[in-house]
Amino acid sequence: MRFELETTLTFSDGIEDAEDDVERIISKANNDLLRRGVPEEVDDGGAKVQEFSIEENKLILKVVSDRYVRAHDAVLRLKKTLNQELGPEYHVGIRKITIDHYIIQFELDKEAKEDISLPYVDNIEIEGKNCELNISGLTEDELSKNYVDRIINRVEEKVEAQYYEGKEEMWDLLWKSEEKKMVWEKDPTEVMEEKGWIKRGPTQGKWFYRPKAAKILKTLENIVIEEVLKPLGFQEIIESMMVPFDVWIDTGHMEGIPNEAYYVSEPVTRNPEEWEEIIDEIKITQEVPLEKLEKMTETPRAGICYAQCPVIYWSFRNETISDDSLPVLLYENTVPSTRYESGGRHGIERVDEFHRIEPVYIGTKEQLIELKEDLLDRYKHVFDDVLDIEWRMAKVEPFYLQQAGGKKKEEEADLGTIDFEAYLPYRGTREDSEWLEFGNLSIFRKYTETFNIKSQTKKLLSGCTGIGIERWATAFLAQKGLDPEDWPNNFKSYFGEMPKGFDLL
Amino acid sequence: MRFELETTLTFSDGIEDAEDDVERIISKANNDLLRRGVPEEVDDGGAKVQEFSIEENKLILKVVSDRYVRAHDAVLRLKKTLNQELGPEYHVGIRKITIDHYIIQFELDKEAKEDISLPYVDNIEIEGKNCELNISGLTEDELSKNYVDRIINRVEEKVEAQYYEGKEEMWDLLWKSEEKKMVWEKDPTEVMEEKGWIKRGPTQGKWFYRPKAAKILKTLENIVIEEVLKPLGFQEIIESMMVPFDVWIDTGHMEGIPNEAYYVSEPVTRNPEEWEEIIDEIKITQEVPLEKLEKMTETPRAGICYAQCPVIYWSFRNETISDDSLPVLLYENTVPSTRYESGGRHGIERVDEFHRIEPVYIGTKEQLIELKEDLLDRYKHVFDDVLDIEWRMAKVEPFYLQQAGGKKKEEEADLGTIDFEAYLPYRGTREDSEWLEFGNLSIFRKYTETFNIKSQTKKLLSGCTGIGIERWATAFLAQKGLDPEDWPNNFKSYFGEMPKGFDLL
Repeated sequence: MRFELETTLTFSDGIEDAEDDVERIISKANNDLLRRGVPEEVDDGGAKVQEFSIEENKLILKVVSDRYVRAHDAVLRLKKTLNQELGPEYHVGIRKITIDHYIIQFELDKEAKEDISLPYVDNIEIEGKNCELNISGLTEDELSKNYVDRIINRVEEKVEAQYYEGKEEMWDLLWKSEEKKMVWEKDPTEVMEEKGWIKRGPTQGKWFYRPKAAKILKTLENIVIEEVLKPLGFQEIIESMMVPFDVWIDTGHMEGIPNEAYYVSEPVTRNPEEWEEIIDEIKITQEVPLEKLEKMTETPRAGICYAQCPVIYWSFRNETISDDSLPVLLYENTVPSTRYESGGRHGIERVDEFHRIEPVYIGTKEQLIELKEDLLDRYKHVFDDVLDIEWRMAKVEPFYLQQAGGKKKEEEADLGTIDFEAYLPYRGTREDSEWLEFGNLSIFRKYTETFNIKSQTKKLLSGCTGIGIERWATAFLAQKGLDPEDWPNNFKSYFGEMPKGFDLL
Repeated sequence: MRFELETTLTFSDGIEDAEDDVERIISKANNDLLRRGVPEEVDDGGAKVQEFSIEENKLILKVVSDRYVRAHDAVLRLKKTLNQELGPEYHVGIRKITIDHYIIQFELDKEAKEDISLPYVDNIEIEGKNCELNISGLTEDELSKNYVDRIINRVEEKVEAQYYEGKEEMWDLLWKSEEKKMVWEKDPTEVMEEKGWIKRGPTQGKWFYRPKAAKILKTLENIVIEEVLKPLGFQEIIESMMVPFDVWIDTGHMEGIPNEAYYVSEPVTRNPEEWEEIIDEIKITQEVPLEKLEKMTETPRAGICYAQCPVIYWSFRNETISDDSLPVLLYENTVPSTRYESGGRHGIERVDEFHRIEPVYIGTKEQLIELKEDLLDRYKHVFDDVLDIEWRMAKVEPFYLQQAGGKKKEEEADLGTIDFEAYLPYRGTREDSEWLEFGNLSIFRKYTETFNIKSQTKKLLSGCTGIGIERWATAFLAQKGLDPEDWPNNFKSYFGEMPKGFDLL
């Protein structure tokens, strides 16, 4: 890894008089300041100012460095020393740092298959595993905010991603239930729509659940709460459905799923007088003037809930949890979730708006590994004894890692995700058809770190287990049908009487 | 009311040869076609072509009319006849109708206090109660879509609204409970925030409810379902939180509250490749590039639920309900509601995102009046016997009528709205402080008409009763405090044990 930086430091006044002092300061820094942080065993490491020249109030530097002290960090260190040492005598200070040309060379883990481009980088040249970045125009602020390191990471990620494309997700079967007798082979969404239990709309990828279908979903929620969450001591919280971008930046959703998010746009003002023209136009035309509306609504700064865990983590940001309260076991069952599915929509199981109970747990590694076993026991009990469905468990690679291009460090740190999958007879045979992922369970190191969630004395991990109610309903109804006569007794006793609904002619 | 329209009808070819026939057709129409719809007792009513001239392929008309046949409707009628009668012989047809100048004079109910302006109208002159509109530039399509009538209505509404401004809402006390002993005089939101039961954010006007506060809200929901909705036979449905503008146009929300709505913006595309530049930028800067995001998101075409009833009405649009199913009693308790409150926010009782159970009922007038009494009985039971709060009922003018500038016709058609109000000791004395509106109950004629909801044989009305859970909680906690020791036994037996929560240091 080699950094070669040509940079201009602009002072508040001429420094031609100070040339000798500048030379002295640079020479001293080359031997000490610009080598700090280099491991002892490394010889001649760190950064070095190889050339310098002075023109009126400008100091032009060429800095070369290795991985231990990035050349731009060296310049930031040098800035401080120059200000301190030249300031009192020459009454000058550095006003601006300009990157004239920055060349960064490093070795990739793998050879790139295609060219890569990135914002803030003029040119990326890759030959075999050798990569050279040419950068100009980054500001001092951007340098100090670590853009360079993230640019290098992003190059490595993009090369990794080239190897991922088209690859299957990692999937290892952990366990499967016995084969069960299927009641029918129909798609429950289609039949419920024919019967008028559900209705499409009013916007794309959404469903309206009339009383019979609504009761099925609410019964499943109730089963989860009574049979899984209450016995394990989970406590309910209620969050907002709106997630500001800074929270999604911390969870990685902002970079992972910006193309799947529904965004929220606020009115520019609540003052009715400023809305009068739009209101007049709506009253006269009975249509919404979209161009005018666009001017009266803000650029989105938040999205609608994609999963509930980000806002739960946000609620603990920078907090220290008492050891006695660990593990903290919470669940959210109030806000709907949205995903812009576009072409991928199917039935009630792949939609743009759906309902999930999301339990989140924070505790020590030992606590969460024990909890994971308890959760698996409770899930197993529900799937086997209450829903009586045919299902299996698989270890998979979590979604965000795929999206992130498979960062190795995170993968190793992760304690794994388990998917629950159910057989859907309407899709084909057990062997050849795709089973439905209807739940998952994960433990992460990532979020307690990103949100700086601490305990008094212990290192904390976190995790969540998504319970998608429409997915549970699809798994159950695809195997058990819509006739309560065919449903298992334990489910029926939760369900009670089928609502009478209403008749439309 | 007088309409004077100068208009040009452009034919596909010259019509100078047809002058005699044109004169004959117009003269015949003046005596018959343009008078159709005029009541028998009115002499010399309807529309009349007073002048006409022909220039090459243009027929220029001056049409004068009264309220019974609007001049522009007369022209649309005439177009049809001219095409039918001239077409076969002269091989011409009307290609375009242009409004050169349209003067509309009518008498207002009340004198305007200020000038009025409107889109599509060049000039509005008002002297006393006399109003004259000058219009040019409306297209044939806009004329046939009834813009002119709605322009006239909007003028009348705006004048009415000038009388409304600053006026108190209509409010008549119907009933009040006995005085109750108050446990404290504190604002429960402030104390819950101090205790860490609730937390502000993560966006403005939203709250995060930790286990103790969440359980209070969920308990109130449960009380409503068990004590009000189930005994009366209400059935649960689940709707989408996203409401397309056409539904809000039908309910009147689009013109009533566009300044208070939260809007939904979808991605322009779900294709990850087209999002790559934004993703790169987020990864490098850890910020969202808002200008780029704006280009990648659509102009809103839907809003987030403001009240749940619009989507329930939508689900019955153009449907005929079987007489046996009447009254249809439904409730929605799944989607959160949003209101952009901006400066008006206070506590958990006036927020941007909140939770409401909204029962909606559709039936005959007799059925709904009976239901209203049953609902009042059940509410009374809950407020008195379960929550034991001090409250009162008042007849008020519904919100949408105020917003609409108080259209008289709707007001008369409406069967009334009742507000439930609770005394909040932290706001001051019973007499001088503002009580909290924590619920309401209405019956409307409007929505079954707008959404064309019919029964086999009977005329249907509809209604709804909003149960704002945060409002109920505020009413209860402001009177009864946060210590379960002070809570009434019936509430306590629904609530059960106080959750242990968790401790933050």
